[in-house]
Amino acid sequence: MKEIERKFLVDHNSDWRAEAVESKQISQGYIPTLPGATVRVRVKGEAGFLTIKGPTKGISRSEFEYSIPAEDAREMLETLCQGRAIHKIRHVIHHGGHEWTVDEFLGDHDGLLLAEIELGSEDEAFDLPKWATREVSHDSRYFNSNLIGAETPPTV
Amino acid sequence: MKEIERKFLVDHNSDWRAEAVESKQISQGYIPTLPGATVRVRVKGEAGFLTIKGPTKGISRSEFEYSIPAEDAREMLETLCQGRAIHKIRHVIHHGGHEWTVDEFLGDHDGLLLAEIELGSEDEAFDLPKWATREVSHDSRYFNSNLIGAETPPTV
Repeated sequence: MKEIERKFLVDHNSDWRAEAVESKQISQGYIPTLPGATVRVRVKGEAGFLTIKGPTKGISRSEFEYSIPAEDAREMLETLCQGRAIHKIRHVIHHGGHEWTVDEFLGDHDGLLLAEIELGSEDEAFDLPKWATREVSHDSRYFNSNLIGAETPPTV
Repeated sequence: MKEIERKFLVDHNSDWRAEAVESKQISQGYIPTLPGATVRVRVKGEAGFLTIKGPTKGISRSEFEYSIPAEDAREMLETLCQGRAIHKIRHVIHHGGHEWTVDEFLGDHDGLLLAEIELGSEDEAFDLPKWATREVSHDSRYFNSNLIGAETPPTV
């Protein structure tokens, strides 16, 4: 599957939170890989996931995601992801016929809010919610895989 | 799951092949990782597998294996494993109440035969078949993950 995402910062003073239809805590980490692929381990609510992603090409990348037991995911997070994980609450928002997610980071990156929309093609049109501000799709500091163990990038 | 394996070279002049009860071709590669974990992609017959293994401790290591579509595995082998794969025929042999596998390497490591037995504990007793020769359990040159892109280690 090809994943095409656009990513934006979120206005902290807006009422985006009132639009959330679902909110689930996510803990995720990465098995340390060489550049070219990422291996993500995620616990989302009571479900586990293992996700392999290829290199980013423009705003597309190949993605292979599999459901795994949450217990396996927790053990891999602890033992294989160098004990470093990202913790966030993922809020789902329906806007303009698209599904958006707003990730509210906890812990090390407290204060960071990242909105994402997944598109069917690189040129698909979409309506930008008023609470979405600066686009950071191409800014590698905001890649989840780069946030681990790094300084928090600008939150506005 | 803990994986406890012992690994032996095989006498090329013996009749081990007559004892095989199953033989299947395997193609496998590794997503390049930093030391500490391996991420193996495997196509075995018409099935695909993704296997995460932790670091080897003695002859034990943690292992998480998941069935995936063979099509995904083939695509990952081609696009994410740097085009390098190991190809081998895995023969299953029943001996002394245990299941052994003999891997007959093809391509780059043609001529290499590796027998393996999986044990329930590190000190479990087993009968060594007469065709099994030198033990190489602790020799990292024979780890599948190290055979990729490397010289073939001694085959006797």
